[in-house]
Amino acid sequence: MNINMGGGGGGGGGGDNNNNKKKIIIDTDPGIDDAMAILVALESPEVDVIGLTTIFGNVYTTLATRNALHLLELAGRSDIPVAEGSHLTITKGTKLRIAHFVHGTDGLGNQNFPPPKTKPIPLSAASFLVQQANLYPGQITVVALGPLTNIALAMQLDPEFPQKIGQIVLLGGAFSVNGNVNPAAEANIFGDPEAADLVFTSGADILAVGINVTHQVVLTDADRERLAKSRGKFAQYLCKILDIYFSYHRDAYNTKGVYLHDPTTLLAAVNPSLITCTEGVVRVQTNGITRGLTMFYNTKKRFAEVTEWSDKPVVKVAVTVDAPAVVALVMERLIRS
Amino acid sequence: MNINMGGGGGGGGGGDNNNNKKKIIIDTDPGIDDAMAILVALESPEVDVIGLTTIFGNVYTTLATRNALHLLELAGRSDIPVAEGSHLTITKGTKLRIAHFVHGTDGLGNQNFPPPKTKPIPLSAASFLVQQANLYPGQITVVALGPLTNIALAMQLDPEFPQKIGQIVLLGGAFSVNGNVNPAAEANIFGDPEAADLVFTSGADILAVGINVTHQVVLTDADRERLAKSRGKFAQYLCKILDIYFSYHRDAYNTKGVYLHDPTTLLAAVNPSLITCTEGVVRVQTNGITRGLTMFYNTKKRFAEVTEWSDKPVVKVAVTVDAPAVVALVMERLIRS
Repeated sequence: MNINMGGGGGGGGGGDNNNNKKKIIIDTDPGIDDAMAILVALESPEVDVIGLTTIFGNVYTTLATRNALHLLELAGRSDIPVAEGSHLTITKGTKLRIAHFVHGTDGLGNQNFPPPKTKPIPLSAASFLVQQANLYPGQITVVALGPLTNIALAMQLDPEFPQKIGQIVLLGGAFSVNGNVNPAAEANIFGDPEAADLVFTSGADILAVGINVTHQVVLTDADRERLAKSRGKFAQYLCKILDIYFSYHRDAYNTKGVYLHDPTTLLAAVNPSLITCTEGVVRVQTNGITRGLTMFYNTKKRFAEVTEWSDKPVVKVAVTVDAPAVVALVMERLIRS
Repeated sequence: MNINMGGGGGGGGGGDNNNNKKKIIIDTDPGIDDAMAILVALESPEVDVIGLTTIFGNVYTTLATRNALHLLELAGRSDIPVAEGSHLTITKGTKLRIAHFVHGTDGLGNQNFPPPKTKPIPLSAASFLVQQANLYPGQITVVALGPLTNIALAMQLDPEFPQKIGQIVLLGGAFSVNGNVNPAAEANIFGDPEAADLVFTSGADILAVGINVTHQVVLTDADRERLAKSRGKFAQYLCKILDIYFSYHRDAYNTKGVYLHDPTTLLAAVNPSLITCTEGVVRVQTNGITRGLTMFYNTKKRFAEVTEWSDKPVVKVAVTVDAPAVVALVMERLIRS
């Protein structure tokens, strides 16, 4: 499945040896900023995208799969396998929260794209993740851009998955800031808090990029105009679908620009020097009014009693980001395609 | 009950007219730093302490009452009424968490003080709070230094209590920092989260001083030595009981000094210019691993859906404190007594 970059719009610097590249699987719910992240990934010579797995969030899972296949078709990279993920949260009973008001009912700016000609592979996202982790132990980075259900299911399928996977770089959480679903919760963690708590406490090498970081990375109207004026195929495509995303940000946040949640997380995986991070234990609240809250404990403070954070493995949490560098990289990679 | 300062160690500038002073009721669980706050209050010419109400927290309520009476006796201010508060959280079933490991089993540094000769008044704390608020509508400041059970009970007893009370200045919460019971919760809010959520959403004029602020205010070993060398009666008394509090801080936080939680909160009520604050809605998580968490919402961020914070009244939350000024005031008032 680790087929090389020959297909089409892909590229990645021509004759590079993929063995030296970081292998990434993007777990995604496209989604407008997911689309940007996927296209930026395909244009990033540092990484080899060995698969997409799909999940609910910005859209339902079925539509996420369709959009993932559509985006790979657009990029001429239908060689990359798409594995469909869970249609339900890990605890089943929970009603899904779908952010159609941010991304459009089709998830891609209501553009009525034709259905893709390709199909997902006959493996679930969780099974694909486990299979690939066994094939390339310690070498795969999962870039998780939606609720963490598939990753948690992979851990339930194979208890050694946390050790076999190289790193999980995830967009999730609101650390020391208000959430974006409500004051307590960020959307991806809110989407499946039980799964998120499982992942955060799994012992895997995890880097969490929260909205405290991604809200610093804004694609402005001017950037969008530069994309529109460029001849890049991906730039042209994105300009079409970005309308609704800009409108939502204008209405909801009063900003003339959009947050680059998913591209920032992707680039943090591609080039870790774009961010700084701290280390500590993260637990997720799973009920009550703060359901979906991520509570970070830096492990330095001592408590009189054993707590729910005691003796849990630490994860990395992004603290700062070189926002201009992230925007510049996104622009450069989208324009050159 | 609003008897004047003639009694003894009290004072407060001699012939001051108490009508011009801010009337305060201290709701307290003494507690070593509660003792400091009470003694500082009695030496603060800006305020007239018109009563103490007691609550569990650092000790059980019965012992809190005994210690409140003892402290007033020490100060020659047994004219000030003490009303005993609740022995249980507002939802009853909850097991109390008593911080004897911080303050000693007697709450006052294990000094075996003789029992006080005086008794509490035959009114519950909640009834006393309601009575006084009716007697002086809009004029009373409650300085709440323990779990908020009594204040919530006063609100249940008289639904207009939030409007009748002047202000509630409370020590509680951990805003954008880890708690001191566990990473999520600060001790006073953890002591009765349901009561705290009632109080925060009651519509009363509330100023919350959290440990994010009080951890900035440290009484050092050197300060303590100055207290010991002074001839102040209160200073001498406190030096005796402070030992265990310093030990706890050395063991738990590795600090050579102690946090002035309660005196800082008291002085924020006495002189609001010692702190700066922000405004927003505070809700308290009442179950799960983050039970007792205070979640602040600044009301500026917009959400797509109605949240549990929507349309709730705002409160003030302390953000910065002039720590040197607070320590200087505490020292000055304890030494001169």
